[in-house]
Amino acid sequence: MDYRSSGVDIDAAQQVVRRVKDIARKTFTSGVLSDIGSFGGLYQADIENYKQPVLVASADGVGTKLKVAFLADRHDTVGIDLVNHCVNDVLVQGARPLFFLDYLATGRLAPDISTTVIQGLADGCAENGCALLGGETAEMPGFYVDGEYDLAGFVVGIVDRAHLVDGRRIETGDVLIGLPSNGLHTNGFSLARQIIFEKLHLRVETVVDEFGMTVGDELLRTHRSYLQPVSALLEFDRKVVKGLAHITGGGLTDNLPRVLPPGTTARIVRQSWIAPPVFQFLQRQGEVPEDDMYRTFNMGIGMVLVVDSKAASAVLSTLAEAGESGAMLIGEVVEGDQQVLYV
Amino acid sequence: MDYRSSGVDIDAAQQVVRRVKDIARKTFTSGVLSDIGSFGGLYQADIENYKQPVLVASADGVGTKLKVAFLADRHDTVGIDLVNHCVNDVLVQGARPLFFLDYLATGRLAPDISTTVIQGLADGCAENGCALLGGETAEMPGFYVDGEYDLAGFVVGIVDRAHLVDGRRIETGDVLIGLPSNGLHTNGFSLARQIIFEKLHLRVETVVDEFGMTVGDELLRTHRSYLQPVSALLEFDRKVVKGLAHITGGGLTDNLPRVLPPGTTARIVRQSWIAPPVFQFLQRQGEVPEDDMYRTFNMGIGMVLVVDSKAASAVLSTLAEAGESGAMLIGEVVEGDQQVLYV
Repeated sequence: MDYRSSGVDIDAAQQVVRRVKDIARKTFTSGVLSDIGSFGGLYQADIENYKQPVLVASADGVGTKLKVAFLADRHDTVGIDLVNHCVNDVLVQGARPLFFLDYLATGRLAPDISTTVIQGLADGCAENGCALLGGETAEMPGFYVDGEYDLAGFVVGIVDRAHLVDGRRIETGDVLIGLPSNGLHTNGFSLARQIIFEKLHLRVETVVDEFGMTVGDELLRTHRSYLQPVSALLEFDRKVVKGLAHITGGGLTDNLPRVLPPGTTARIVRQSWIAPPVFQFLQRQGEVPEDDMYRTFNMGIGMVLVVDSKAASAVLSTLAEAGESGAMLIGEVVEGDQQVLYV
Repeated sequence: MDYRSSGVDIDAAQQVVRRVKDIARKTFTSGVLSDIGSFGGLYQADIENYKQPVLVASADGVGTKLKVAFLADRHDTVGIDLVNHCVNDVLVQGARPLFFLDYLATGRLAPDISTTVIQGLADGCAENGCALLGGETAEMPGFYVDGEYDLAGFVVGIVDRAHLVDGRRIETGDVLIGLPSNGLHTNGFSLARQIIFEKLHLRVETVVDEFGMTVGDELLRTHRSYLQPVSALLEFDRKVVKGLAHITGGGLTDNLPRVLPPGTTARIVRQSWIAPPVFQFLQRQGEVPEDDMYRTFNMGIGMVLVVDSKAASAVLSTLAEAGESGAMLIGEVVEGDQQVLYV
């Protein structure tokens, strides 16, 4: 008996490492000191540009959106999803991303699929100016169905301590500005898949008129990164942004309270935007209660900015200049107990 | 239909987050600025103590050792394995760990098991003086068998650029010092499980005389962290350590070359140490070729130090003073093409 007969192919793994080296190198920023394949990735940050540099780190996975990628046999988008998700999670604290590492776990390593997934990660990293510094590709016989995999990511960003965005200055009267999402992003897929594939028996290649595209294309739309518009805003006036919430698992309902200080509540005016067709479709076809919709899906809002009401129009025009023309006023901060009130 | 009926229980997830907050807080070092549950974990490193601070990051998983934990229904050790594995991966570049984040993925979230796993991570972090800064606990219906999970981790360490250990100064005549492992650590489990459970039909509770304990206890022995002895050595004389290799997947055969500069090869004297009983048992019972053993398992050596031959005895006594009495001379560096020669 040997390792290969037990289901682990070290040569295949090394083949992936070789390919990944070339892919990752293209994402390397000036801070990267190491090459892929060293025990740890080395990164020297430009800390001389920071008075009190604070590292901001986050871990996340793609979740069951991966199942849609498996059904569609399309593996180039989930990496972008993951990087953008992670980047947004450090961005909401005011940080810009420095580097990213991935964990890709498979039952049987298919070098082509693994390489495509990692190419997606590299594309996402390059778009966010963030280095793909390393990662782990694990072959775990008996853990995953053949052809399936799990994908998680870790990002480290940096921000000056004085520039941390933490919601502490939020007060009643502040307004909530929503930035549009690009579909489901990476949340609510267990419910979406149940409605679309189990209840309605649609297939990834089915065209849904309401979507204007196939089920697969709609569901695999990539998670947006808000790095560019939010950075533009922070450069315009760092003080104006009092809080940022990334609308992921738990929706507006669970994510907005994460930045609200005691004594405040978010009052969301539902009619201030129209939920994109995919959410309307899921709500109607799944007969999902309204409350569940807002606690499961982003409903068309991928990021919420809490800003001083007097700055609202300047913020909207700065965002528009940065290409974020869909930004909208969706509510305000009122007195309350760190909840979300929908009206 | 709602999210819970689709197999995702946000309330259970929030229950885990609440418990994890208390567990993680106990690992918080002075650098931690945030609490668990914020979008990103905040860490302010003591960079004033470094001339040119370099961040060293690594991602890893526990691999199929998890299957043994499932069989034994014992979930308190795999977190320690993972943290120690990650810590060693940044230690070999001379870095000390700052913080750790985890990714725990389940099919159906069992709050008790998740909490036990995360307690193990926290124990590992506390032992290594490293903060459990954050993580993601994902419930992914249909991805994992009920009761099973995958666990990955991510560590960030710091080292002064001038103190990076990178093998560049390694030359022929240097000696190889091996530090003993504590069993299989986290590698070779697909083969070990095949031999022990599929071929021999042993059970986790079977006592194997050769092991002096049950199969489960032997296989779940935790991955050692070498932070303490190696740090003691680096403090004693930083220059003396020319290279460090963490012996993980690929064994001595694949890991030693990762630190060898061109023109050098590692010559390992097999008889300089006795492989612990578990390796002898696996080789004999699985009829595993010798070469495969050394490319699959650590064979009793978890970490290799490459040091100047003149410093060897001082290194061994410094290690012994630091409690690492089992350190042994296992070979030397000779001319060659970045390979491992076994004699």
